[in-house]
Amino acid sequence: MSKVRVANFTVSLDGYGSGANQRLDAPFGDRAGELHEWMELAMAAREKGLTDPAVEQLDRFKDGVGATIMGRNMFGPERGEWADESWRGWWGENPPYHHDTFVLTHHARPSLKMEGGTTFHFTSDPIEVVLERAREVADGKDVVIAGGASTVRQYLRAGLIDEVDMFIAPVFTGAGERPFDDIGDAMAEFTVESMVGVPKATLVKLRRA
Amino acid sequence: MSKVRVANFTVSLDGYGSGANQRLDAPFGDRAGELHEWMELAMAAREKGLTDPAVEQLDRFKDGVGATIMGRNMFGPERGEWADESWRGWWGENPPYHHDTFVLTHHARPSLKMEGGTTFHFTSDPIEVVLERAREVADGKDVVIAGGASTVRQYLRAGLIDEVDMFIAPVFTGAGERPFDDIGDAMAEFTVESMVGVPKATLVKLRRA
Repeated sequence: MSKVRVANFTVSLDGYGSGANQRLDAPFGDRAGELHEWMELAMAAREKGLTDPAVEQLDRFKDGVGATIMGRNMFGPERGEWADESWRGWWGENPPYHHDTFVLTHHARPSLKMEGGTTFHFTSDPIEVVLERAREVADGKDVVIAGGASTVRQYLRAGLIDEVDMFIAPVFTGAGERPFDDIGDAMAEFTVESMVGVPKATLVKLRRA
Repeated sequence: MSKVRVANFTVSLDGYGSGANQRLDAPFGDRAGELHEWMELAMAAREKGLTDPAVEQLDRFKDGVGATIMGRNMFGPERGEWADESWRGWWGENPPYHHDTFVLTHHARPSLKMEGGTTFHFTSDPIEVVLERAREVADGKDVVIAGGASTVRQYLRAGLIDEVDMFIAPVFTGAGERPFDDIGDAMAEFTVESMVGVPKATLVKLRRA
């Protein structure tokens, strides 16, 4: 059955989903390198043909996924009205999604067809409506809520997420956005399937009970 | 050299230091059993002569410690003025401290000498002054800041803590107090010495850089 998943979301020891001061030369904000060191190590391990739970998660981020939803800050560093339409995402001309990817924003912009199958759709629809659209185009595959923290929080609060795979990184960022704030007891509906140490992080898998 | 340590403090996946709704029949609040399951397992393992990083931490909580400081809520369920002096702590007549133990409270009460070497001192002095008194009686040994979250937070914010050994438990409590809130960038002065998985928790050791 098609699921709604948060895949490989990274939080700091003080619970922040990304570093503070996100900007053009620091897409994940301050200390992003430390937050995502587990990912660098997992990618290096995979290149050497090694595997561990973190390496397996790299594939799980894509396996069976038919659509992605992200917040506007995950798409780019601009705020407010689009200055123009020259910004085409952080990922170059061939983004790693390869399917329809919905960007939550209050500011309209035509859909943006990239190489490799990714098309960015910009939408100010309510998150529930965006999810319905994503489910339709995913056509039986999973929908990934990619981030950032604010987008994850909105979907958690609405009770719309089935699975969360998160990494806790051994760093304090001291500022940023927290995915688990102001969501009432939304997390009470999840069980912790596993919690295991990997290089430079702890991987926690949460499943809707 | 004598250190000021937070030893074996447990936080939830959403960053709370104890469950909500602390009360007489639930000293650590709701879901305390799940939060501290690592400790039950470590004690059981130790009884069988087994060891792992969590079992080692059980001893480290006491090794070389000459004084303890705790918040009033960690001493008992009462709030405000003491109704009388019949409450003598959660631990029975022989508490597990075996040295001078300072209880931060706005409400005066005579010191309370228990069996086994523990004497509770009730003080409304500023936290820095209490720490100085604790250091004096510790006489070269370490001082442990036992909790709760609010007491840990105050000492972290004041930059007075040298080491934190914390366990992250695989549970969301959804409410309570967070040790790492409103402490500015106090944690930037710590390095993460290690982060390892143990049964039902991740053990994180922080050391002042």
